[in-house]
Amino acid sequence: MSRVAYVDGCYSDLRRATVPIEDRGLQFADSVYEVIALVAGQLVDFDLHLARLKRSRDGLGLPAPMTDAGLRVVLGEVVRRNRLRDGLLYLQVTRGQAPRGHAFPAAPRASLMVTLRAWTPFPGSLAAGVPVVSTDDLRWRRCDLKTTGLLPNVLAKQRAHEADAFECWMVKAGVVTEGASSNAWIVRDGSVHTHPLCDDVLGGITREVLLELAAANDIEVVERAFRPADVETADEAFLTSTSSFVVPVIAFDGSEVGTGAPGPVTCRLRDLYRNHVSGPAG
Amino acid sequence: MSRVAYVDGCYSDLRRATVPIEDRGLQFADSVYEVIALVAGQLVDFDLHLARLKRSRDGLGLPAPMTDAGLRVVLGEVVRRNRLRDGLLYLQVTRGQAPRGHAFPAAPRASLMVTLRAWTPFPGSLAAGVPVVSTDDLRWRRCDLKTTGLLPNVLAKQRAHEADAFECWMVKAGVVTEGASSNAWIVRDGSVHTHPLCDDVLGGITREVLLELAAANDIEVVERAFRPADVETADEAFLTSTSSFVVPVIAFDGSEVGTGAPGPVTCRLRDLYRNHVSGPAG
Repeated sequence: MSRVAYVDGCYSDLRRATVPIEDRGLQFADSVYEVIALVAGQLVDFDLHLARLKRSRDGLGLPAPMTDAGLRVVLGEVVRRNRLRDGLLYLQVTRGQAPRGHAFPAAPRASLMVTLRAWTPFPGSLAAGVPVVSTDDLRWRRCDLKTTGLLPNVLAKQRAHEADAFECWMVKAGVVTEGASSNAWIVRDGSVHTHPLCDDVLGGITREVLLELAAANDIEVVERAFRPADVETADEAFLTSTSSFVVPVIAFDGSEVGTGAPGPVTCRLRDLYRNHVSGPAG
Repeated sequence: MSRVAYVDGCYSDLRRATVPIEDRGLQFADSVYEVIALVAGQLVDFDLHLARLKRSRDGLGLPAPMTDAGLRVVLGEVVRRNRLRDGLLYLQVTRGQAPRGHAFPAAPRASLMVTLRAWTPFPGSLAAGVPVVSTDDLRWRRCDLKTTGLLPNVLAKQRAHEADAFECWMVKAGVVTEGASSNAWIVRDGSVHTHPLCDDVLGGITREVLLELAAANDIEVVERAFRPADVETADEAFLTSTSSFVVPVIAFDGSEVGTGAPGPVTCRLRDLYRNHVSGPAG
């Protein structure tokens, strides 16, 4: 079945969906995006994603392509037309089309493009845990904004791919900031650690929800940076993302983490998140 | 007259030239580019731009969209079809279209897009000098690669625009690295200073040529970083870029530089570069 995409007012076959070559998203990475999981027909944590999209836009002075209500209609329509129950929804907002020039256009008209692809939540292949490698964090200084300036993330993920790993955690000033497309966590003596929010990390939606779930279930989480050496001596490690939820990390840079199998705290958090996604809050 | 653009085998009206929304240039800034000046029907320093394009591609494992000979044919055809004698040629190479995923596609097929727009070399408006402001250098750690991950440059140029300045010089670890779309230079006691080549700066083609012209004309250039405070106390300052060549900088962050007028060393270098562009080497 062909996939339906939305671009600036038009729904069309993804294979025919295009943007002008002078779109600023293409020429300047002057754009922001979100990926939202669709599970059993529901967009998971939709309001949180919408709020983050606004934060990213506001941080860059990037206008909204339409009202939030309009956006809800468009996303709903993309879901409906693709006839999927489970999928990954991708939406990108650019500063629109303009003759090439670095500074903002005088009257930018934001562009919106939306796609949806089939995807399986909680695949068995991830439950057993995954290996992770590390690399230098080459990114710019506003990693809190979810922009499409993703080339350093691409290079990090490619490094993971070449090392037969699932993800690559990035290291800046001696500490793990986050993964190429995930947040990074370790467990030590029953306490869970992850990098605090700042310009160096993206505030992951799964991260945000997991912090709430942990607090509600008396699992101690400390927002504190950790070093690569701390991962190797941790009891457990895991990663979180919109597309993989909570995934045990069982090896780091070639060394076993903990017992080399998913740990109890990780599994508990994974179950809590799974209930969150399946429940009415999702 | 409508402008002609080239995208992957097709020449078309720029207003109808598009790329697929799953092009990795749009979704990941997984692409590199060049801007080349066309003066009196000649592409200035064409071979140097082609060599830099290859360096950028090689640094990212990005395949060539075609042979260099093929690229020459396409660029020549874009120039011919646009019927321009003076212009700015823009070419962008992306890692092509692929279902969204950070790691490189298994068999990437690079995309090439080319545009040309009318432009006036050595406009009188720049000869009198321009004001420049400064900002923190927010960019990633591989500024030596000419990628389209230009959002920090966009923000810097927007800052210049809002301050009624021509350009914004970026400051990292206490020194001026370069401008949002230019290299930065000062003159002190007859000696010219600019940041040495490293991961923090892009090796500008105009910079490269100007170094050769200076050496051939007994003008001392030292590739050494300078601080913002050094600009304020310099005898002269100027910037170089493909689209503006050599431009005197007469104010920096609101303070006059030198006499507040273009200085003699700057003017000499500007003349040397102008001769280079107009001569057979261009």
